[in-house]
Amino acid sequence: MDEREISQAVIGRLPRYFRYLGELKDEGVERISSQELSGLMKVTASQIRQDFNNFGGFGQQGYGYNVEYLYYEIGRILGLDRQHNFIIVGAGNLGRALGNYMNFERRGFIFKGIFDQDPDLVGRQVRGVRVMAMEDMDRFIRENDIDIAVLTLPKAGAEAVAERLAEDGIRAIWNFAHVDLNLPEGIQVENVHLSDSLMKLSYNINRYMKEQEKH
Amino acid sequence: MDEREISQAVIGRLPRYFRYLGELKDEGVERISSQELSGLMKVTASQIRQDFNNFGGFGQQGYGYNVEYLYYEIGRILGLDRQHNFIIVGAGNLGRALGNYMNFERRGFIFKGIFDQDPDLVGRQVRGVRVMAMEDMDRFIRENDIDIAVLTLPKAGAEAVAERLAEDGIRAIWNFAHVDLNLPEGIQVENVHLSDSLMKLSYNINRYMKEQEKH
Repeated sequence: MDEREISQAVIGRLPRYFRYLGELKDEGVERISSQELSGLMKVTASQIRQDFNNFGGFGQQGYGYNVEYLYYEIGRILGLDRQHNFIIVGAGNLGRALGNYMNFERRGFIFKGIFDQDPDLVGRQVRGVRVMAMEDMDRFIRENDIDIAVLTLPKAGAEAVAERLAEDGIRAIWNFAHVDLNLPEGIQVENVHLSDSLMKLSYNINRYMKEQEKH
Repeated sequence: MDEREISQAVIGRLPRYFRYLGELKDEGVERISSQELSGLMKVTASQIRQDFNNFGGFGQQGYGYNVEYLYYEIGRILGLDRQHNFIIVGAGNLGRALGNYMNFERRGFIFKGIFDQDPDLVGRQVRGVRVMAMEDMDRFIRENDIDIAVLTLPKAGAEAVAERLAEDGIRAIWNFAHVDLNLPEGIQVENVHLSDSLMKLSYNINRYMKEQEKH
């Protein structure tokens, strides 16, 4: 098994498996077949088996998968058995909302610091964490074992900050800025382009309306 | 040309074309070849031509595409020539952050109302819009030509609210709740599962670290 060759499409589906298995576990379900999981998740059983085969198959027997084992194994593959410390760069509405979001902590993502260039925001508290000035960011990253930076900045400043974060040794950027980042190979980037997602919704609304007009 | 057959993968790439073309337009660029656009966007020129051929090709000539024409055509295809009124259901941190986000308005997405079941939140202002009680939602949707509902609720309440929104005649749900919604066919759903995105990032950090350890 060589995890390096697993496609990002498969990886993108793992969190959803993890979510469904967590719910099954909480409901006390002990075993589940790929057919049952397929019915729940509305993907084919063969897709599920193919996805799981990338990781050795997780020991599906005639009577199905062990839910708890599968949940913990997928969590481990997702790296949720390690703690990840993160900072937020940009203490505007979205940055503060993400700082206040408690669910990340349950998965081992720990909110350590938040930074902004606006002196009016510096000193405010976000869930007990004080907003710091941008000058303090580089030292803070090095001293606090930060591996993820959440970028909630306007597009204009985002690229320069991302390069600075790369120099500070950050491992990953969760990018909410409306720009594509070009960073050195070892830095993982995951984009959440909210406007793009809203435009896709708008496309689908209008396509559906046009179809209805035809009938 | 039959837009119904265009895959969601192609649709998902349109907002990114739109974003790059908007920047080129703002920089005063009048024409661009698929090769130049390919270099900028880091996708192959043949991918760009294939994507655009779904919409008739946009009249690429020897000397490239007309940037302004292409920008407006893609905007029109995305439905950005129409106004879309939206409400936000759930006035917690994320809901308020999205209400405060001005950029959606520039694209024709107009923030009309925000609702919460928490009496402590009702009456507060989010960018000049008063938080209303959940009892007022159904009437508000019918009277204010609302077509998009943004769901920023905890998982537990999300499904029941989504069904209610469907009955109220909403056209689309932009779903930030950590649950998959099962709704009637005509209702468009676009999911933004933030935790899923963060887990994918965590996977990629750990995979990279393991690779480094091997060398």
